[in-house]
Amino acid sequence: MKNEEPVRVTVWNEFIHEKQNAQVREIYPDGIHAFLANMLNQRLPQAEIGTATLEQPQHGLSDEVLQQTDVLLWWGHAGHHLVSDQVVAEVQARVLEGMGLICLHSAHASKIFQRLLGTSCMLRWREAAEKERLWIVDPSHPIVEGIEGEFFELPQTEMYGEFFDIPTPDELLLISWFEGGEVFRSGCVFRRGKGRIFYFRPGHETFPIYHDENVQRVIAQGVEYVRPAGAAYFGNGRNITSSLEPIEADHNVDDSLHN
Amino acid sequence: MKNEEPVRVTVWNEFIHEKQNAQVREIYPDGIHAFLANMLNQRLPQAEIGTATLEQPQHGLSDEVLQQTDVLLWWGHAGHHLVSDQVVAEVQARVLEGMGLICLHSAHASKIFQRLLGTSCMLRWREAAEKERLWIVDPSHPIVEGIEGEFFELPQTEMYGEFFDIPTPDELLLISWFEGGEVFRSGCVFRRGKGRIFYFRPGHETFPIYHDENVQRVIAQGVEYVRPAGAAYFGNGRNITSSLEPIEADHNVDDSLHN
Amino acid sequence: MKNEEPVRVTVWNEFIHEKQNAQVREIYPDGIHAFLANMLNQRLPQAEIGTATLEQPQHGLSDEVLQQTDVLLWWGHAGHHLVSDQVVAEVQARVLEGMGLICLHSAHASKIFQRLLGTSCMLRWREAAEKERLWIVDPSHPIVEGIEGEFFELPQTEMYGEFFDIPTPDELLLISWFEGGEVFRSGCVFRRGKGRIFYFRPGHETFPIYHDENVQRVIAQGVEYVRPAGAAYFGNGRNITSSLEPIEADHNVDDSLHN
Amino acid sequence: MKNEEPVRVTVWNEFIHEKQNAQVREIYPDGIHAFLANMLNQRLPQAEIGTATLEQPQHGLSDEVLQQTDVLLWWGHAGHHLVSDQVVAEVQARVLEGMGLICLHSAHASKIFQRLLGTSCMLRWREAAEKERLWIVDPSHPIVEGIEGEFFELPQTEMYGEFFDIPTPDELLLISWFEGGEVFRSGCVFRRGKGRIFYFRPGHETFPIYHDENVQRVIAQGVEYVRPAGAAYFGNGRNITSSLEPIEADHNVDDSLHN
Repeated sequence: MKNEEPVRVTVWNEFIHEKQNAQVREIYPDGIHAFLANMLNQRLPQAEIGTATLEQPQHGLSDEVLQQTDVLLWWGHAGHHLVSDQVVAEVQARVLEGMGLICLHSAHASKIFQRLLGTSCMLRWREAAEKERLWIVDPSHPIVEGIEGEFFELPQTEMYGEFFDIPTPDELLLISWFEGGEVFRSGCVFRRGKGRIFYFRPGHETFPIYHDENVQRVIAQGVEYVRPAGAAYFGNGRNITSSLEPIEADHNVDDSLHN
Repeated sequence: MKNEEPVRVTVWNEFIHEKQNAQVREIYPDGIHAFLANMLNQRLPQAEIGTATLEQPQHGLSDEVLQQTDVLLWWGHAGHHLVSDQVVAEVQARVLEGMGLICLHSAHASKIFQRLLGTSCMLRWREAAEKERLWIVDPSHPIVEGIEGEFFELPQTEMYGEFFDIPTPDELLLISWFEGGEVFRSGCVFRRGKGRIFYFRPGHETFPIYHDENVQRVIAQGVEYVRPAGAAYFGNGRNITSSLEPIEADHNVDDSLHN
Repeated sequence: MKNEEPVRVTVWNEFIHEKQNAQVREIYPDGIHAFLANMLNQRLPQAEIGTATLEQPQHGLSDEVLQQTDVLLWWGHAGHHLVSDQVVAEVQARVLEGMGLICLHSAHASKIFQRLLGTSCMLRWREAAEKERLWIVDPSHPIVEGIEGEFFELPQTEMYGEFFDIPTPDELLLISWFEGGEVFRSGCVFRRGKGRIFYFRPGHETFPIYHDENVQRVIAQGVEYVRPAGAAYFGNGRNITSSLEPIEADHNVDDSLHN
Repeated sequence: MKNEEPVRVTVWNEFIHEKQNAQVREIYPDGIHAFLANMLNQRLPQAEIGTATLEQPQHGLSDEVLQQTDVLLWWGHAGHHLVSDQVVAEVQARVLEGMGLICLHSAHASKIFQRLLGTSCMLRWREAAEKERLWIVDPSHPIVEGIEGEFFELPQTEMYGEFFDIPTPDELLLISWFEGGEVFRSGCVFRRGKGRIFYFRPGHETFPIYHDENVQRVIAQGVEYVRPAGAAYFGNGRNITSSLEPIEADHNVDDSLHN
């Protein structure tokens, strides 16, 4: 029944800002991927955590790595266009087969998110170090397990605002209020094939967002939520030449048009 | 994170057919509730399982029992009208606070299901011992975990057919094909307040439906799925006299109509 | 095809505040119902508009009136508890049969809204004359037809904030930002039976909300959107004694348990 | 308010089977596109109907044609792989901007449908001239307006069965029963950007499916349903350098990590 196997996680990061910007490097000295991997190791001690980056061959996402990944986290921003279309197609196929995917912050504009959702996934944005307050709109959801209040706050963030061009989420957990006047659907789950995708807004690289207790909790619980579950996947199409039930040869059809 | 506490289950049964009908008694000698409780004990060895029936005081659902129930299973048919409105109101309140509810088969017409969904919850039906084939339409769903094929079958069932007057389910897992020509949304999850409700169609009393391996698997996995999770529930309304953010006293309002 | 018949609208108002409060009376001299009816007459010149109030026999909602109503608007606040349960049951039945329902502002706590949705429908609120900005999150929706920008604003409102205890809306059009720090799902459509329900948040009685151009546009377009459409309603249940397709008498069933 | 302009429709067809197969040609002598265009002309006399086919330059879908199309119907099967990726990208962009799209039958496997939905869109299929019965599961939906019964039937069809690898539809109208034992979600609406997509299953080329009264009614009402409506589209992303509301320069932030 309940899956008690260790969950296998790969944290993918484009790993660009950390090399170019001292402010980012101060917050995430070994890269956002290393920080998130370490965080998940502490919060999910049973998990097996790896990392992958853009500069690696196949961006670190070989077929072997993907086959052994239950949940893939994706952080990208400046290098979306540098991601290989071939790798994107392979990640998409794995998601449809059941691999969970967590797209963080600016990964809204990643090729993989756009390809899985079919829309532009674009939005309003503003860098003004403003306050964000994330309101829980689905208290029944395991991803917000254990959050005590009606909301949690981040004191300084990049703003993302509506209209956020996504399909209606299958599950909407969080709506953000921003000091500058916008709102945003900040926590969304989408089901695609046998896979589940969690989009979680917080995470700009120049603020210590991933140091926040609530943000960490949501990401860790997101990993558990989108890990593969369910029944076998039959999404590749099948021509069924014999039928499960008998089919009458002779229907009472008007044959004037069809013979 | 993941809830490792034993789940506390109460199996409620009106317990009428078993006393009046020898055929039903042969299939469920101690009542459907006892059979389901025993089945869940075997499949969820950590769970704490109790039962309750219509004839008990408060139908066995005192405030104390409800407060100690994580998941309530409901089986009713002939005695829907005998269920106290007061008990229904208390069960509804507990669901909104987070208690999971599994409504089985003819519980589609129970007061509690109708009250939580707001529609008639009625449907077509026919007793003709016909074949049912349940197709999985969401392979990503934990409730169908481990089912290998695209469907499973029940050789003899009472038919339930569309139009099934329910709100659009939050999650639709199973659609049934019936030999006599109907289809039916047979596995549906609804979120209401902090609680989750699983409706599962199979279960007529004169066929040994709950002896079926796949049916048992789905019910047991349903218990795990709808057990309480998530954040605190703030659904009782609150007048917030002070604001989180400063509010300007003087807006640029046209005061000709409002002063 | 497209329904060209005049839409028949009944505007229901409890009509309490207008009699007790001079400020409200100044904004709505003949009552909110009269104001809305007049507004709809101007915006939907083909429509046939009537009104009904709490103090009338059967609250003005006799069976004859309900049968001749395509869309019912509901405004209530101080008198929710004074509405007869019998009238509520009759309105619910008409909605399931196809009558559209528009619940405005404090009608979130009306008996009819709670009964159709099954949840508490409660929320946070604050009376502080704060600014509200309504963001469009579904630009494809006919109810927001013709709104040019990404949002519209109301300079002084009563605040309604999340958690709003409703089922996941079938369609979510508008999310509000409030000056005091909250967010709210302000425009929601729910389908129940053959009927459609539009909840629209704006409308406190002490601000001239219904004088606002965008608010009027949304309400008028809401009337057109929720008017009855679609196929015949078969939600009252039917025992089908003969089958559409032949059913084999003899299935290969294990008869040890069922005979 | 209600859009009274004539709707501009383009019927696209790969137009392959009709040239190669006498049986298909007998049913649709001038091609499926010509047949559907003529049918829509009769049912929507105000509409402006054009056609386009694969063999034309840009498949008949130049920028000018797309800009003047409110609703695009798509019929493809043998030539999906021959459709230019560039044209697919342009159609996708137009849908996000608001153009309605109706994908018929085997267009489930078209590039445009897969790109907009992000999944494989594959399914079970069988050519055995079996009976299909389409059950209405949302009687409130304008696309099924005027259908009197609970279902309608097609005497001989190609079967499409679950698992149908699509995202959860925003609106599910029809579920098919097949004689051979399968079920299928046969009428689905998806919202993407400002556009709406209607997938309608019936339509195999060797059966006179589009001669059927109910099928024609559903397609014509589908055209009216997915024509552009709603508010302006802001899905292309915008950097908002000034804020709607004032932002405090100095938040009470822990500057040990961020300065």
